[in-house]
Formats: sequence, C-alpha cells, structure tokens
Amino acid sequence: MRCAVLGTGIVGRTIAAKLASLGHEVVIGTRDPEATLARTERDVMGNPPFAAWHVDHPAIALRAFAEAAAFGETVVNATAGLATLDALNAAGGANLAGKVLIDVANALDFSQGMPPSLNPVNTDSLGEQIQRAFPDAKVVKTLNTMSCFVMVEPGRLAGAHHVFVSGEDADAKRQVVELLVSFGWPESSVIDLGGIESARGTEMLLPIWVRLMGILGHVDFNFHIQGAG
Amino acid sequence: MRCAVLGTGIVGRTIAAKLASLGHEVVIGTRDPEATLARTERDVMGNPPFAAWHVDHPAIALRAFAEAAAFGETVVNATAGLATLDALNAAGGANLAGKVLIDVANALDFSQGMPPSLNPVNTDSLGEQIQRAFPDAKVVKTLNTMSCFVMVEPGRLAGAHHVFVSGEDADAKRQVVELLVSFGWPESSVIDLGGIESARGTEMLLPIWVRLMGILGHVDFNFHIQGAG
Repeated sequence: MRCAVLGTGIVGRTIAAKLASLGHEVVIGTRDPEATLARTERDVMGNPPFAAWHVDHPAIALRAFAEAAAFGETVVNATAGLATLDALNAAGGANLAGKVLIDVANALDFSQGMPPSLNPVNTDSLGEQIQRAFPDAKVVKTLNTMSCFVMVEPGRLAGAHHVFVSGEDADAKRQVVELLVSFGWPESSVIDLGGIESARGTEMLLPIWVRLMGILGHVDFNFHIQGAG
Repeated sequence: MRCAVLGTGIVGRTIAAKLASLGHEVVIGTRDPEATLARTERDVMGNPPFAAWHVDHPAIALRAFAEAAAFGETVVNATAGLATLDALNAAGGANLAGKVLIDVANALDFSQGMPPSLNPVNTDSLGEQIQRAFPDAKVVKTLNTMSCFVMVEPGRLAGAHHVFVSGEDADAKRQVVELLVSFGWPESSVIDLGGIESARGTEMLLPIWVRLMGILGHVDFNFHIQGAG
C-alpha cells in the first residue's frame, strides 16, 4: 500500500519506519522539505534532526504535504495537533478525498507552560475538526493515547492494553484495525468507540497521560480497560 | 472514625454503606432531610428512592449538610458535580476546616444531552475549585474514575486496575490511601498523581468512561495503567 505520513517529528518517523518495514511504500510529508532537511538541531525531546534519521531510512521519500498526500492511498496525520489543520489544508482536500485519514495527533497546547491544555476540548475534538474540514476524507482517530513506540510495538508492554478507534466510516475503521493488527495489536485489544465524536474521549486522556509520564519517568505505559472482556 | 458523606444518590449511599460496614460512624448529608425522605420516585438510573434504601441502613443517620459536615472527622463529597459547590457552601467552611475532604464527584453536564460535557474542564477542575473555595479543607480527589460499585469493592474486577489520588496535603493523601486499602485496594493499585491540579486529568477520563459504559453495557470496568510497574 502507498502510505503518506504527514509530520516529520518522532511520531511521524516512527510510524513511517514501521509501515516501510511492513513492505508499504512510504512518503513523509512536510511543509518545506528543504527546510526540514536543513535543520541541524535536536527537538525539545532530544530527538536528532530529520536529516540524521533520514540517512538510515533512504527509501522513505520526503515530500511537500500536497505531493505526499497525493501519493498516499492512506494518509496518516502525525503533525502537531495545533498545526494539523494548516498541514491538511496544505495537503489539499482533493488529495485526501475518498482516502482513509488516520489521525494520531493531539491538540496539546504548551503555550501556557506545563501542564499542557487541549484545544479543542470537551465539546469538540481535533478528530471532529478534521472530519468537518475534510468531509470527503474517511477520518479514523486512533493510537493517540500512547507513545509512538507503543503504537508500533504494542508487545513492548507486558500484559494486555488497549487501542481505541473512532470514526464515521465502518469500512475505513476495518482497514485501520487490519493495519493495527499488522503492527502487532491483537484484534481483541482494539476498542471501537463509535463515531468521530468519541475522539473527544481519547483526546481527553492526554492530560493524565502527560502527568503519568512525569511520574513514571518513561513512556512505556498505556491504558488498559480492566473488565472490558 | 466519624464520617460524613454528602450526597444521597447511589454513589453516596454505596460509600456510606461501605464505611458503616467497616465500623465507622456514618452520617449522610443532604440539603433538606425531610424532602429527601419524602421522595418516592426512582432516579434516572432506576435506583430506589432514598427512604427505601434507608430502611436497610437504619444506623446511618440522614442530616442537613451543615450538621453532617460538623459531625464528620472526614467528609466525602459524593454530590453531583454541578451541585457540589452549593452543597459545600451549605455544609459551611467552618465545618470543613482542617478536615480531609474526599472528593469523588465529577462535574458532568447533561444539560445539552448525551454525551455529557465537563464544567469546569481542561484549565481547571472541580477538585481545584473545591480547594480554592475551602482553603482550610484538605481536599483529596480520588475514586472519581470508576463506578461506585468498583470504588468500594475493587476485587469485583478480575485483574489489576488503578485508583488515582490528587491533593496538596501529603498526610491527608496518606489517610485516604489507608481508607482505600480498607476498601480492598492493594496499595500498589494507588497512583499518587501529585497536587490537586492533577484532578484535571482524572476528571477528563469521564467522557471515555461514559462512552465505554455505553459500549460495554455495564459499569464493571476500570482504568489500568499497563506498564506503571
């Protein structure tokens, strides 16, 4: 499958590398490929600049958002949540129409310092905003409730844990569940929460996730719904 | 210990009965005891009116908020979240001062239908509002992330699951953890999230909790943080 992953941060890189390792053709989308490749500084989490990562993943092309989205049969939104709508607008509605758009982002606002707040929140969600802005895309919110390392390697945690999916299109969700299974998720670990509105619930898990990261001192954890059967 | 449980709904009743079963002296607080006892209708969840429950728990006195709070060495807020500040104002700051005030409530707003929203949310929480309004009380937010049946009988779920505590006073949190242990919670199941500000994170678990209740068709589930050690 041809996959476009929008976002050059650690989440986008990790998902892109996983997809490539599974035999998919993968392109990463960014606003300005030259600018992305020219960066030499590490990000705030200490991850190396994109170019350093790219040396180890030469088969994954870096393209402008629109070109990447046009290439992808499936598109993954791994941009920062507050930049997502701008990025998708740059990708272009025509390049997203009819496609499964997997949204793994969270609209975390760090502008007021820690802890981050969410925007939108409560009576709206990023997943819903995306679906409203791109009604011809089949938005599936998933994987946004854990670190990217757990996303692509659920077995790194001992014991069962869950991944949620939210979206309006049943067939799109089925395709996403197949992809999750290919990532290593047992099908029994996937909880379908219903329509895209339910993305509110998963996005609102982020504040406690961030708090737990600080307390535990690592990101190798995830939510498990004990009693879900 | 003398305990005041504010709130006559299923949550207050369940916690009051548990405390009484453990040998504590328990009083339930309400706005108007006569009015509470006069009700004959079931609540929206189908629970019997308070008077019917009270027949089976005659040792638990029903008192006005202020009298109940004055009686309690420890006070439990089990009122509906949107009514909490009114209830605590009726209880009176002087009757809460210096006491551990265990807040298990969630400010769920059903006024716009389902799904409920939260108010406050994101940059504030009910737990913080209570602590600000009653600075001399030692507010500990806990147990608000599960059904009342799981609160008082964690063993009804097979497998491990977690309960969170948030609060500014370390000694108050220690007392609450002891109470949780007496309810049947292994101490290893308690995660101290830090100050009362972290109540934002647990209160924001409610939207997905409500969604999961609808999907699973029961309330015998709870959050487990897989990988928390």
